[in-house]
Amino acid sequence: MEILTRQIQFIVEIDKLKSVIRKSKLFKSDREENDAEHSWHLAVMGMVLADHSNEQVDILRVLKMLLIHDLVEIDAGDVFVFDTVARSRNVAVEVEAARRLFGLLPPEQSEEFLSLWSEFEKGETPEARFAGAMDKLEPVLQNISNNGGSWTEFNVDLEEVLDINKSIREGSAVLWNHAHSLIVRHFNKA
Amino acid sequence: MEILTRQIQFIVEIDKLKSVIRKSKLFKSDREENDAEHSWHLAVMGMVLADHSNEQVDILRVLKMLLIHDLVEIDAGDVFVFDTVARSRNVAVEVEAARRLFGLLPPEQSEEFLSLWSEFEKGETPEARFAGAMDKLEPVLQNISNNGGSWTEFNVDLEEVLDINKSIREGSAVLWNHAHSLIVRHFNKA
Repeated sequence: MEILTRQIQFIVEIDKLKSVIRKSKLFKSDREENDAEHSWHLAVMGMVLADHSNEQVDILRVLKMLLIHDLVEIDAGDVFVFDTVARSRNVAVEVEAARRLFGLLPPEQSEEFLSLWSEFEKGETPEARFAGAMDKLEPVLQNISNNGGSWTEFNVDLEEVLDINKSIREGSAVLWNHAHSLIVRHFNKA
Repeated sequence: MEILTRQIQFIVEIDKLKSVIRKSKLFKSDREENDAEHSWHLAVMGMVLADHSNEQVDILRVLKMLLIHDLVEIDAGDVFVFDTVARSRNVAVEVEAARRLFGLLPPEQSEEFLSLWSEFEKGETPEARFAGAMDKLEPVLQNISNNGGSWTEFNVDLEEVLDINKSIREGSAVLWNHAHSLIVRHFNKA
């Protein structure tokens, strides 16, 4: 039962995602979110918002990507989305993490997971673009609910917020319109 | 944009799942798991273990069920799986919770989510049986890693553990064989 042993080992290992703490906080809360909670929320958002995707998507592949997209942070850690220097430095570490973590699985699944993760990172398919939009939209909604949240805490200005989040539009113009107006309204009253 | 407004309202509301605390703890940890982390873990387990299902399953429906199966606990709370009296008392409260929560969504999605939740609860389809097996298997693995975990804490004996978890077999005989041997070995050395 070599296959099952490897699968169980992977299932136990990924429990560590629950201890990777993000910069953004739960809605109307001062408690930081962890990566497992974040991944769950994005997957449900994907279910709920799929019809707003610019292009038709295979929702199963969207959900799979969202569920595993942050697993590499078990080894590589969470890097603040606005810290672009640290993010580019972290790329090689994330690739190594993907190899180690997905390498725990039986070969066929290992390849499938690596391919899903890589597709998400590249953002070149309709599914990856829509999944990427979910990943950006959740912290926007959280920060709005927390009166600026991590934007206020780390002094991020309107221009930077729009610049980092504008890729939402590539997945969904409808959701970007919504996010854009929330962001602008927030900074106008701040 | 009435549809999007309702969807966003639902997305914000379900954030509360991250504050519903379970009886079982993270792997090799004394920190209790919350329902959002649990739902994420089950969904990834579903991705990884689907080939062990007794019957072929539509994995998309399995993932959707696992992602939303515990949302009713936002209103109804988490009831310990071994507290069968409280569990049967809680059924009406959960039905009411499902109506309220899924009722936040636009009508068509509201029906889809209610139907997925109800399918999971009834456990009468291959997808619901396999999803149900994931829901039982995760705390078994956690308790084994925590030297008995909630079984030890709440004085649950071998017979009760086997009785509550034997429904894993209806979703996957392979996974039940594995879980059964882990459970028996644990109680034999305890």
